[in-house]
Parts: sequence; C-alpha cells; structure tokens
Amino acid sequence: MSDRPTTRRRFLAGASASLLAGPLLPRAARAAAAEASSAAPSLEAPLRSADYRRVTFADPFWAPRVRANRETTVPHLFRKLREVGAIENLERAAAGQKGGHQGYVFADSDVHKSLEAAALCLGAGADARISAEVDAVVAVLARAQQADGYLDSAYQLDDKPRFTNLRDDHELYCAGHLVEAGVAHFEATGRRDLLDVARRCADLLARTFGEGPGKRPGYPGHPELELALVKLSRTTGEARYLDLARYFVEHRGERFFATEHGTPPAEYDGTYWQDDARIRDHQVIAGHAVRALYLFSGALDVARETRDRSLQDAAERVFRSAVDKRWFVTGGLGSSAHNEGFTDDYDLPTYDAYQETCASIAFVMLCERLFRLTGEARYADLVEWSLHNAVAAGVSLSGDRFFYVNPLASRGAHHRRDWYKCACCPPNVARTLASLGRHAFATSPEDVYVNLYAAGAADLDVGRGKARLEVAGEYPWDGRVRITVADTTAGPFALRLRRPGWCDGKVALRVNAAAHAAPVERGYLVVRREWRAGDVVELDLPMPVRRLEGHPYVEQTAGRVALSRGPIVYCVEQQDAAAPVPALRLPPSAALRVERDPALGGAAVLRGAAAAAVVDAETPLYGSGPRETRPAPFAAVPYAAWDNRAPGAMRVWLPTA
Amino acid sequence: MSDRPTTRRRFLAGASASLLAGPLLPRAARAAAAEASSAAPSLEAPLRSADYRRVTFADPFWAPRVRANRETTVPHLFRKLREVGAIENLERAAAGQKGGHQGYVFADSDVHKSLEAAALCLGAGADARISAEVDAVVAVLARAQQADGYLDSAYQLDDKPRFTNLRDDHELYCAGHLVEAGVAHFEATGRRDLLDVARRCADLLARTFGEGPGKRPGYPGHPELELALVKLSRTTGEARYLDLARYFVEHRGERFFATEHGTPPAEYDGTYWQDDARIRDHQVIAGHAVRALYLFSGALDVARETRDRSLQDAAERVFRSAVDKRWFVTGGLGSSAHNEGFTDDYDLPTYDAYQETCASIAFVMLCERLFRLTGEARYADLVEWSLHNAVAAGVSLSGDRFFYVNPLASRGAHHRRDWYKCACCPPNVARTLASLGRHAFATSPEDVYVNLYAAGAADLDVGRGKARLEVAGEYPWDGRVRITVADTTAGPFALRLRRPGWCDGKVALRVNAAAHAAPVERGYLVVRREWRAGDVVELDLPMPVRRLEGHPYVEQTAGRVALSRGPIVYCVEQQDAAAPVPALRLPPSAALRVERDPALGGAAVLRGAAAAAVVDAETPLYGSGPRETRPAPFAAVPYAAWDNRAPGAMRVWLPTA
Repeated sequence: MSDRPTTRRRFLAGASASLLAGPLLPRAARAAAAEASSAAPSLEAPLRSADYRRVTFADPFWAPRVRANRETTVPHLFRKLREVGAIENLERAAAGQKGGHQGYVFADSDVHKSLEAAALCLGAGADARISAEVDAVVAVLARAQQADGYLDSAYQLDDKPRFTNLRDDHELYCAGHLVEAGVAHFEATGRRDLLDVARRCADLLARTFGEGPGKRPGYPGHPELELALVKLSRTTGEARYLDLARYFVEHRGERFFATEHGTPPAEYDGTYWQDDARIRDHQVIAGHAVRALYLFSGALDVARETRDRSLQDAAERVFRSAVDKRWFVTGGLGSSAHNEGFTDDYDLPTYDAYQETCASIAFVMLCERLFRLTGEARYADLVEWSLHNAVAAGVSLSGDRFFYVNPLASRGAHHRRDWYKCACCPPNVARTLASLGRHAFATSPEDVYVNLYAAGAADLDVGRGKARLEVAGEYPWDGRVRITVADTTAGPFALRLRRPGWCDGKVALRVNAAAHAAPVERGYLVVRREWRAGDVVELDLPMPVRRLEGHPYVEQTAGRVALSRGPIVYCVEQQDAAAPVPALRLPPSAALRVERDPALGGAAVLRGAAAAAVVDAETPLYGSGPRETRPAPFAAVPYAAWDNRAPGAMRVWLPTA
Repeated sequence: MSDRPTTRRRFLAGASASLLAGPLLPRAARAAAAEASSAAPSLEAPLRSADYRRVTFADPFWAPRVRANRETTVPHLFRKLREVGAIENLERAAAGQKGGHQGYVFADSDVHKSLEAAALCLGAGADARISAEVDAVVAVLARAQQADGYLDSAYQLDDKPRFTNLRDDHELYCAGHLVEAGVAHFEATGRRDLLDVARRCADLLARTFGEGPGKRPGYPGHPELELALVKLSRTTGEARYLDLARYFVEHRGERFFATEHGTPPAEYDGTYWQDDARIRDHQVIAGHAVRALYLFSGALDVARETRDRSLQDAAERVFRSAVDKRWFVTGGLGSSAHNEGFTDDYDLPTYDAYQETCASIAFVMLCERLFRLTGEARYADLVEWSLHNAVAAGVSLSGDRFFYVNPLASRGAHHRRDWYKCACCPPNVARTLASLGRHAFATSPEDVYVNLYAAGAADLDVGRGKARLEVAGEYPWDGRVRITVADTTAGPFALRLRRPGWCDGKVALRVNAAAHAAPVERGYLVVRREWRAGDVVELDLPMPVRRLEGHPYVEQTAGRVALSRGPIVYCVEQQDAAAPVPALRLPPSAALRVERDPALGGAAVLRGAAAAAVVDAETPLYGSGPRETRPAPFAAVPYAAWDNRAPGAMRVWLPTA
C-alpha cells in the first residue's frame, strides 16, 4: 500500500551509515562495508580500548566532570556509604556480629561499585585520601569474607541460607561488582588484596554453580556477574571464570526462577528477568532495562572469548530492537517506572520517561562492546550520544547530586538528590567517569580509532609501538578539532576519525595544513600513513542546530522537535524562558542562534524566540477557534546540564504549534 | 508579561456561558445570570429530575442501548454474579456457613448495584425474568442480614470484627449500595422487603457512628453511603439518615484513617481517600477519582437538604478544578492507574488515560446535582457530554462486554471484557442506563428543562399539573429536534431548551412553525406560554465538525486535534483507516464529511483523507529533514462505539503534522 519514500529521514546522516538512520545499511554503505570486511575487526580480532589511565581530558565538557568526579563524587560516595550503614554492614559481618543489616539486600554492591570507581581514580593518578578509603574498605571486605569465599553482608548478618532466592536477592549481582572492583583495583594499583577476595568469591561460585557432580543450577536474577567473570578470566588467565559466565549466559531462559519460587508455569512470565527465552532466542529488548543491557553485554563478552558468532548475532538483534524502537532521544532507555524497563515499541514518554542513569550507562557498555567487535562508527556514535546526554545528566556539575530517573520533561519537582535508598546510580556514574578514556580511543595492530574528540591527550599502544596523540579544540561546543601526533614509534598506521552520524554537512579534513580527501570506512575517515611526531590532522565537523523529530509512530513526540547540535541534546528550563515552559511553541520559522554561556561553564546554548500560547484563567481545557501567541525569548541548554541552577519546569520536546 | 488575549477559545460557545469556556462566566453572561437570579433554582428550591419511569427513548443513540441494557446487560449481571460466587457468598451467609468468601471484600456491592439496576428496569416496565432474579436475591439478603441489621457477607463468612478497617474494607460502601438498591426497589415496585433490609442496616449504622454516648467516630473509606443515606432519608422521611450522612461529610478530613491504622502523622497522606482536608477546605479534586466524585455528590445532597451554601461552594470549587484542569475530552476523569485517580494539573494521558467508567458515571452524578441546584446549562452540557462519550463507551453495543479503563488511544490490545474481578463498572453502567430519563428533563413549578434531545416521550409533573412531551428527530446524529406538547394540564410554564455549549452557530427556533426569538437564561432558550396540546417547538442546532484542541499546558494534546460533532467525540479505529493509525496526521486543510453508517446503527461517522506518514523498516527512531506523507482515507467513529467491531489500534487525538 505504501509507495517507497523517495527521501529518507536521517538521524545520523552522511557516510557513517549509522544504524540510527534505519536498521539496514543503505546499499552503498553495505557495499563499502563488504569491501572493507577483510580488514574489519571481528570476534577473532576485536579492537582494544585505550588504557583509561593514559588518557587525559582538557576539554570544556568532560574535564570538569572528570575532575569533580575525582575530587567530589568519589569522597562523597564513601561518606554516604558510611552514613547509610553500607560499610557498617560489612564491618559488622567482619566482626562476626549478627542481625540488623541496613539498606537493601544489595547494599554491598554500592560499596563494591564505589571501590571500583575509587580504584579507577587511583589508576589515573595517586590520591592519598582515596587510597586511604580504599585500603580501609578492602581490609574490611577481606575480614568479612568467610573461609570458603562467601561474602554478602546481608546474608551473613541475617543468617539467611545462601543462594535460595537468586531471583530477588542479588547475591550474584553483588559478587559481580566485587569481582569488577577486584580487577579494577589490581589493574590500577598492582595490588592483589581485593583481587584475591574477588577470586575466592568467584571460586566459590565456580564450585557451586554449573553442571557436573555436586553443582547446582541457577543464574543471577540481576545479570552483571557474567561480564565481571569474563574480566576476571582475562585478568587471571583462568578459564573457569569464563566457563561459569558462559554457563550463566547459556542457561538463562530455562525458567529457573519459576522453579525456585514454585510459580506455576502458566503464571510465570520471566520477561522482567530476561528469563522468558534462551539467550539466542530473544527478539527484542524487554523487561528490566539494566538487567537486559548487562546481560547482553556479558553475552557479548562470552561471545568474544569463545568466538561465538550466534551469541553476537543475538545481541545485535536485541540491540537493533532497542535503537529502532525503544530508546530516548537523550540516549537512555527504559520507558516505565513500573518495571524499570521496557514497555511497547514506540512508547517513549516525556514526563514519565524512566531512563534510569544505570540503564544509560549499561547502554554505553553494550554499544562499546559492539563497536569493538565491528569497528563500526554507528556504535561509537551512540556511545558518544549517550555519554554526552543521558549519562552526563546523571550527576550534577558539582559532583555530589545524582539523578536516578531522567525524565524528558518536568513540572518543576524533579531534582537530583545526594543519595538514594537504592543507590546503584551514583557509583555507576563515578566509575564511568573515572574510566572515560576507554571510550575515547581504540586500537588494532594497524589502526587508531578516534571516537571522542574531547581535547586532551592519549598514549596508545599501536601494533608493537606506541603513539601519543594530543587533541585540541572546544568540542563539543565547536566542531573544529586538531589532533597532533605528538610522538610515535608505531610505524605506519591508519588514523580512523569517526565521522559522527549526527554530522549532516561536509566534513573538512586537513593533514599538516593541506586538504586531504580521506576514504570513509565503516563510518570513519581513514588517514593511513607513516606518522611523524608533529604531524597535525585538523577536522572541521559542521554543527548546525538540528530539529530532531521522532518516528511517526511515537505518539509522545508527534508535532514536537528536540533541539540538538553536535552530540548535544538540548532542553528548555523555566529560568531561561520568558513564558511558562508548557506554553512554549517552536515553529519551524523560529531562528536559533548559538552562544557560549559563562554561567554554564562556557557551554553552547541556543537562543531564540518561541511562540508562547497566551493563557489566562479563562482559557478552557478544550477549545477550538483561533489561538493567540506572543513571542517569548528563550534559551535551550544542554540536557546534561539541566537542574544545576534554579529549580523549575523543563522540556526536551517542544511542540511546533 | 502577558497581553490579554483579544480572542477567546471556546469549547462550548454561544450563550450558554459554559464553564468549559473558562472558569469565569464572561461578563455579559454574568449579568444575565444576575438578572435571572430571582427565578433561578437554588438550595432552597432545587429542580426535580424527571421520573425515569415515565421517560422513554426512541432515538438512534440511547434507545438501542437502553434496550440492550434491559434485555442483555441486567440478565448478564446476575449470571456473572452467580458464576463468580458473589451471590453464593450471601447465600452461604444466610445459611450461617463460615469461611470461603469469594472475590474482593466489596463483592456484595456488585450484587446490590445489580439489584438497583434490575429494580430500575422494573420501574420502567414489568419483566418476569428480572422480577424473578430480584425476588430471589432480595430473599437471600433478608435471610443473610443479622438480627441487629448487619449485612456484609465478607465479614460474616470470615468472622472478621466489624468496622475495624473502614479505610480499606468497604463495609460502609457496601451498605451505601444496599441502601440505594432498597430505595430503587421500593420506588420501582412499591415493595418494602429490600427497603426494610436497607433500613435495618442503616439503623445499625446510625446507632453505631456519630457523636454522643455509645457511638464511635469514623467515615467510609470509599464514599457512597453519604448520598445513599440522603436518598433514604427523603424516601422514608427519617432525619436520622440525613444526620448520619451529614456526620460523615462533616468529619471527613479528621485523619481518622491514620488513627485507625496507627500511621504516624508525618507519614500520613490522606489524599487518596479525600482525608487530607475537611470538606470545606478542599481546593482541587484529588486522590481516587470515584471516591472524590461520590463524596462531593453526597456533600451536595447534604447541602441541599440542610440548605448549606458553604458545602455547595466547596463542591463547586472542587468541580471547577476538575473541569478547568483535570478532565478528559471524552468527559471522564482519572489520569493514573496508580491511584485510580488524579495526578497533576494538565496531565491528561492518551494511551495511559485511566478514565474508569465508574468515574465518568460519578462525574455525571456530580454535574447533575450542580445543575439541579442552579438550573445552569453548563452543568447539563457536561452531563450530556460525559453520557454520550465516556459513559456510553463503558458497555458494548451488545450489552454484555464492559470497559473498566477507558484510554484515549490503544495499540490494539485494549478490549471490553464480560466481567472484571473488580466488577464495580458493569452494574454501574446498567443502573445509569436503566434510569437515564432522570437526565433528560427537569422541572420546577413553572419550568420544564429539556436537557437531552433524544427522541422519545416524557410525562412530567409541572406545578400542580402534568405535561406530556414527545420528542422527534435523529439527535445526536442530526441537530434538528421537534418537540410536541402532546398533552398538558399544567397551565402556563416555560419550556427551557438547553442551548448546548458545543453549539457555536446560530440556533433556529420555531414555535408552531413560526420563527421565535427566545431569550437565553442560564444557557437555556426560554419559551414561556400557555401551552396547548399539539403545540410544536422546533429547534435546529447546527452541528459542524469541530477540531478540538487541548489547553496549551496539556502536553499530551499539543499539536493534536480531537474531532467532535454535536455532543459526540470521535476516534479513529484501525479498520477504518488506509494506513496504520499511529501514522495518521490530520492537517487543518483536510476536509471532513459526515455520513451515516448502517454498520454502526446509523451513527454519523466522519470521513476524510489523512496525511499518513510514510514509514518503512529503515525509518529511524529520530530524524530530521523532509518527511513524506501520502493521502490515507479514513473514517472517525463515535468514541462510545469503539471496540465493537474488529480489534485494532485506536486514537482520539490525531496529530496535525
């Protein structure tokens, strides 16, 4: 019935063949991908992330956030963990005391994740205060761990029988974060004390779960342990941790939680826990958002280690269902508070968007893994987009206030808090910011991929040599980027510069001041040469203001636009509007100009005049006939920066009429 | 900052000075109201509703529904009540058995409400099958009632101590519906057996609750008993029932439920139960929708009986907050499933609209009461609007399938069911349809108010005489109405013809074939004369198709229109659209024509061509740039008639671009 459209609406246009422009690559890009496939990263030869310890930020967006994370957020985490009793739980378990566990059953995971964040900060540079916190808590964990490796203060204090409620009680989730903390601590400091605690715990789990004599079935109610065990396996070289991760991934979907809880088969719906289908049988992303995204991240890690293409295919299929129909324009996921997760295709609310900060982080984790397996910019595009919007919004510019839920509109009552009873998000943001450099660059033996254009520097391993890149510019407020190869011993390699999918216009590239026509492969401008110290590559990415629209099937965005520029999504806060935010209309004719705002750390803000619907006490709830509007000057600020000034109403999506 | 608008958007325009055009009457109408105030109905001299037993329907909208209600719905109710054990609960209580109460704790109320519906049917005309059902159940109730008047099968079967959980356990709510059933049964049949059961129950409550020696405090967790007791007081002439109703109304807000449940004051939020403020201190409608609307209906009944203007003022204020900011375009209320009730001002979802059928009925009850106290058409406008849309949607055209929740959009999975575990709505619709004539006409000693223009006939008491009116026409599908005074002994009286607020155009009025210029008072065209049998009044109400828009602050309706014509709100169902419903766009330029559809009982449907967004598998979730549309013929059908044919997607609000 439908004629094929002759024009295509593009989110991320140009040569990047972004997934976001549609689930299928345009034909030309498919051909290009096929040509390049012999050199493409793969399960057998994935890319390596940059070593976050050797990437520094000096840009206007991330550098202040990374600094606040280290100086404010991480100390704040430990202060709050003590205040709410999460560390006391472990101290009391270490002292052999009983009863009185404080907080949720998964409170230990907040400690572990904060330890991981702190360890990552230490990896980036010494800090006596953070070191002292870490040493003290690691010592508590070591004392609290039982002889056989078991460590879970909620169970130890309250004498609950182990592993009796995998569905709800998070023992395996906590163990996963313990393992991640141990690995991060070892990598950052070279010390084995926390890693040994993690290994003893993982050894216990490997003896307990799986197939074979004396082992029992089951898998984590909240996935996370899977990806942690793969990390541990790579760090230690021990296959048994990978085997256990694989066991968990492969057996999920056997409806174990129905058995565990005696739920009659007809009444069991495992969707919330991704226990409704075996891992390769999932068609769409569904259920609890963080669980789904951690699960498929772990599945991809198992796929990579075991070179299992069918697992990668399943994760890509589920990913695609998310980007085609179930993500928010700010780069997060999860439409409903009811299940902290997914609802229906194209159901993307505004005031009621859940978009948990942890889900945005988990989405970045999933996209980063897909990027490393494929080398395709479309995945890195999403890493950039989510980091700059949904993830960055999760913490205040001051570093000590956090969003758990990230709506796309507010009537004025939604604000960051200094902690949450369910405190998963604050340490998750902290560990993400502390290791941000991982997302900035990636390498293969012959390539350097540049994914984030933030000013700063990176020391990278390329092939058997090294290369130091220095990035200058005001990105993301300005699209001009200057990359200097400050030093290199790497021989010839390809510098692969991500051509952002959001970039519609003509990208200018110069090498040592001369215009350079670079081929585009998998969304990257490729400059292959024998680099010399002092070589300079300049990139000019046009950054016009864009009016994004939602897919026609998204009811909540029909007749509205979201403003973006570069990788930044904007919103309007009440303090910047000369009329009530709900009255603002942004017709296509309204001009918008870009200005840098010193009050927001020099961020680029968008200024213009909206048409504000004139409203008074006699305006009826429903009416017809002419409507009066008047011009209302306003500014739109980056979504990531909202709720850092005066409290008030906020909207990302602005009606056009 | 805001210039005063020079044009006013009107929902219900013209001379009716509808509340819906704004909470304040336009100045001219205020003056007219003041002039007419000496003759206006009031607390001291309220209008009387028509006797529903003497109003018949022969129109294309209500007559088939009233017939299906009598022939199908009421027998269906009793069949289902037996099937789910609601009648068995009472039979077992009557037999002195213990344990095993089936269904919710308020299951008795479903029986009582069904009895009321059946009794009302008997009032309208004999029916042996319904009589037999009623007699059998009334006998069970009489046997089940305890010696002191107590009757609640959930408590009797399960031996729970009486009146220990007024907040949640619905004993007083069930008693209210028992009382309403008793009154209806007596009025319809002249028999006292059910009325006596009701009185014994009410007498027990009057001995138990209130001030004075041996009495205890408290009020119903779910209001309903208040208005029932006022009915009983009027029917029996006994003041003690009114006193108890007044006690409940006056004491509500004393935070009794906090005391009852030991809730610490700082943790108690009584909003859900309207226990957050004393009755005169409520500023806005809030909490559980049905509870709020029943409560203020009961408060108005107490106000009328006690001539308490301050109670009326409170109810009007709360009503106004609802119509200004918290009702759906289809005439129902309740934005959230979470509390079955209200959320924030201007939060009016579409897919997630709750709009419980019982809340729409309760809204009609409240508006009808305000109309009778004021004689103002703006209230009767809402009675008409809600009945024709939100209420009528609550039951299938076949009469045996019901909506509990009435969303304004569906992805195709929302359908009526033949029963609900919480079965309040089906019998509530049934009793409303069985007594529909109450809303059609009202009288004072010198006036006949015509509120519904459905074809049919009514025998009315006017002053000391009688008048028979016969109404002809195809209303609501056609605005031409012919009213014949078929007989009268009433002497001179004013025929007050509601000038519907939805009617923007010029209304033509003819009396005995001659054009007649009638003054408008309180929204009514007034024709005062000495009527003679055979006098004919003809009214022509222009019914153009209207494109209603929401208040600019309602995010969910911005950039969308809802189609209406006369009192009918339309929706688009998938089977009537040549493109997926979510893809439909209705630009202002799209012409719409009216046709009668034999497949929908001759209903007027709207036909036109939408602009359907062209979508394929490559359409990204977010995009910018040109969008392609193609013409898609569609029909819009009355919202009240949706989900009677093939299941599929539905939308009331259509984006314009």
